[in-house]
This record gives sequence, structure tokens and C-alpha cells, in this order.
Amino acid sequence: MKLLRYGKPGSEKPGCIDAQGQVRDLSGKVSDIDSRTLAPDQLRALQGIDIETLPIVAQPGRIATPYAGLGKFICVGLNYSDHAAETGAQVPDEPILFNKWSQPTGANDPVVLPRNSVKSDWEVELGVVIGTKARYVSEADALAHVAGYCVVNDVSEREYQMERGGTWDKGKGCDTFGPIGPWLVTADEVGDPQNLSMWLDVNGKRFQNGSTKTMIFSVAHLVHYISQFTTLYPGDLISTGTPPGVGLGQKPPVFLKDGDVMRLGIQGLGEQEQKVHAWNASLLD
Amino acid sequence: MKLLRYGKPGSEKPGCIDAQGQVRDLSGKVSDIDSRTLAPDQLRALQGIDIETLPIVAQPGRIATPYAGLGKFICVGLNYSDHAAETGAQVPDEPILFNKWSQPTGANDPVVLPRNSVKSDWEVELGVVIGTKARYVSEADALAHVAGYCVVNDVSEREYQMERGGTWDKGKGCDTFGPIGPWLVTADEVGDPQNLSMWLDVNGKRFQNGSTKTMIFSVAHLVHYISQFTTLYPGDLISTGTPPGVGLGQKPPVFLKDGDVMRLGIQGLGEQEQKVHAWNASLLD
Repeated sequence: MKLLRYGKPGSEKPGCIDAQGQVRDLSGKVSDIDSRTLAPDQLRALQGIDIETLPIVAQPGRIATPYAGLGKFICVGLNYSDHAAETGAQVPDEPILFNKWSQPTGANDPVVLPRNSVKSDWEVELGVVIGTKARYVSEADALAHVAGYCVVNDVSEREYQMERGGTWDKGKGCDTFGPIGPWLVTADEVGDPQNLSMWLDVNGKRFQNGSTKTMIFSVAHLVHYISQFTTLYPGDLISTGTPPGVGLGQKPPVFLKDGDVMRLGIQGLGEQEQKVHAWNASLLD
Repeated sequence: MKLLRYGKPGSEKPGCIDAQGQVRDLSGKVSDIDSRTLAPDQLRALQGIDIETLPIVAQPGRIATPYAGLGKFICVGLNYSDHAAETGAQVPDEPILFNKWSQPTGANDPVVLPRNSVKSDWEVELGVVIGTKARYVSEADALAHVAGYCVVNDVSEREYQMERGGTWDKGKGCDTFGPIGPWLVTADEVGDPQNLSMWLDVNGKRFQNGSTKTMIFSVAHLVHYISQFTTLYPGDLISTGTPPGVGLGQKPPVFLKDGDVMRLGIQGLGEQEQKVHAWNASLLD
């Protein structure tokens, strides 16, 4: 099932995508899609609905994040061996984790560069949405804790990330730097998360072209691994790393500038499109 | 004003501390203390109450986190020059930031060591609670965005932090690793945040004995600095680093073990006491 939320910030409505790709209104069935909706019994109840009977939403307008109640936003660094190589980093022995402080950002919301930013970059990533509490879970049991998957653009300011001292978090949590969605696709519909093609274009030029099959650490391993350091709760989101083709890896490097358009997608999970803006506080809350 | 919340998880009530140090029941005035309560007009309304007229709570029981709706939990590393020295690190050129994933933990709640942890450590820190949105604020304006202050124990697993690859976040966000409180003391009552004595004992032995006056980067600078990388919102918490005396800095190092008791406090902000437990899932949610 493909779940989404649509409407202006603060007045989003729940919906889903039908077999024809149309948005259907779920607000008669659930008040919103949030961390509670991600529980297995709640998802099963939604999946029992005949969505062809739901009202069609001809003009959904803005696509919001596909669920409310985003919890921890944990990211994995250098999780594709060829991306590690392009950044000049060694393949890590165990997953590199960092955090994203960005407020929830819809799939097509504007991306606003920080003031004076000169090294902002893109990263198409598979997002893993937790549905049930995961604490010291085995790799074998890990995927049972996943409600579904979504596209994430792990937008990154490389100067803040790498040249300002300390951890990477400074360059990852800028406002608008983590578009999520358009859909939360339930795990049953995705099937094997390790065989999904993924891509990202900037201004129509293909920069990233990869597949989740080249991840160093699988989704199951990541859920297992992270659950040893902190408990994962419904609504937590793990962004699992990016394949090659980021701006930093170009020769010479290419970074985002005002007016650029990013388009990105993952097989079965839909597409995002963001217009890039120079710093402009009026585009933010 | 000293605000607090008391009661079991999920049924906390709001309160405050009177001139005699007794808990008074605020639930007739506000339903809870949360991120909305931190707004200046809301705090002013609370400060206008004659707290001597409020019911005394003779047995408040558990002291919860002093406000609900904890947002980002951003920590500053190596922010006391003598603590940097004891860990063998250089004084940083600009603040080192990292993130804490721990769920909200009350001031006296148990601290539960992760499975097989052998390097868990303590850090008494001044917590800064944001009251109004802060985005690119100047250092001169920064303190106007602070609702108040609290004690934080930035409990840290040094092996996870330093020997497991990547950023520090792995060793900082374990369950129960960030007790907050007992009180949120409003900024007007604290006055100058750069002249507060602070201390931490383990099993009655004084390990940390410092003052916020030896911070490298002041509270005002930190709020200004962080607001350039991510917008701070009401309910966000900045933990501002620890003075010397952590376990890692002892010769030989000393780490927490089952049965230890930590007591810590900051001048005017109250005291925490946590019993340390070996891994025991039944002590967690």
C-alpha cells in the first residue's frame, strides 16, 4: 500500500495511491497517518480497505511527509562501497551513524540553501520507517520491525559537514535538508529492499544511478545494529546511505545553487522534485 | 521560577518549587509544562501566580523531566578547556556538536548500562532550554531565546563513542543516557549562566567540581552558533559540555558499574541522583 499525506503544513490529510496512480482520500478511515498508524495491526486494517471505494482527490496540491510524528532521523554514512571510494573514504568496518536535525520536509518542498552555503550537495537514499519498537533485535528479526520504505534526499552541506570540526551533524540538519516521500510504501509491497534501483538528476542531468543491492550493510543489518545503541520506536526513520554520483565526487566538484532542480526516485517508492533556493527565510516556517 | 513535573511516566503533573523547597501543584493553572509553556508570555503568566496559594504536594513521588515535548537534544563536546585536556583532545576552534537519541529521562530515573558495556561514564552539564524560535540569531540576542536552564547528565559510553567508527552519536544516545532536571529554572531566576558551580559524585566521591565560568564557548555563543546550522525551536535542549573529572580522565580510567550511585548538581538548578543498573530491559519502557 502506498500511503501519503497532502495539503498545507498543519492541515494535511491522509491518503493513498490507487492502481491508476490517483490519490484517494483516507480521511474517512483515519484522522491522520502518524507513528501509531505504523503499527502492524493498524496497517493491516488500512490494507483491508477497498481503496477503489474511496473518494478520488483530483488536485491534492502539496505532498507532505507521508507520516506525521517523525521521531529520530538517523542516517548511515558511506554505505555504498563505490560512494565511499568517490569521496576518498575507506569502506567502514561497521556502519557510520549520524543524525539529521531538519524539521520534516515534504518530497517536493523547496530546498533552501543556508546563508553563504557554497557546498550543498544531494544524496538519494532509501528511507526505512520503523513500525514497532526495536531494541537489541537480531538481524533475522529486524525486518519485522519495519513498517515501510520511502525516498529520502539526504541534502548535505559539505563544508559544514567536513570542515567545521567535530561530527557530521552540522552539515546534515539544516532546514529543508531532508525531503521525505512522496509515499510510505508498506514493507509487504516493497518485498526485498536490497534490489531497488535508484537515481537522481540535477537540472535534467543524471548524476546518481544505483541500486540498493550494492549497500555494504543491508537494511536488516542496520536495524539490528542501530538497535544495540538506542531503541528504535515507531516513526523513527533510518536513511541508509547513498550510491555514487554526489556533487562532491564530481571532478571538479559540483554543488547546488539557486534555481537548480533536483529530481530523484527509487523503484516502487515514487519520485521527488525540489527546486533549490538561495537563503530566503520567507520560504521557511 | 522552578518548574517541574512529577508522577509516573504518562501521567505526569505540572508543579513548581516554593520558597521552602516544597512542591506545589500547578495543574489547576496549566494542564502540563510543555514546549508551548516555554513561550515568554506563557512563562510570564505562570510567574504571575502567587505560588503560596497552590496546593502543597507532600509526596510528589517520581520527578519526571521538567517539560514534555523535548525536541532536538543537541550536545556540545569538549567545551571546558581543562576537560579537553584530560581527554587528550585539543581545544576546538569552534563548538563540536553532536546529538543525543535517548528518550526523555527524569533526574532520578535509573541509568541502565547497555548490554556488555564496560566504558560508561558521567558528565554533569548545564542544559539550555529554548523558549522561542532561533534562526541566525546574533550572540547579543541569543539569550532572549532561552526559556531556562536545567541539569543534564550526559551519560556516555566511551567505547561506542570513540572506538566503533564514525561520529560520537553511537555512545551518547543509549536508553536512559540523558537525565534532565529536576527543575527547569527560568532564565530570569538564573541570571548570568556563566557563573554557576557544578559538581558530580559517584558513590559519595567527588569526581567533578567545576563552574560554567570556564566554558570555552558561552551559552550565548552556542545558541548563536547552532542557530546557523539548524533552527532551534521551543523545547529544544542544548547540553553545553562538561568540566573535568569524567571517568575517562582518571588514571587509570574509572567507569560505571552495576550498583553505582551518581549524584550531581548545578548551583540554583537542583540535584539529580541516579542508581546505575547492569543491562535490564524490565527497567525500560
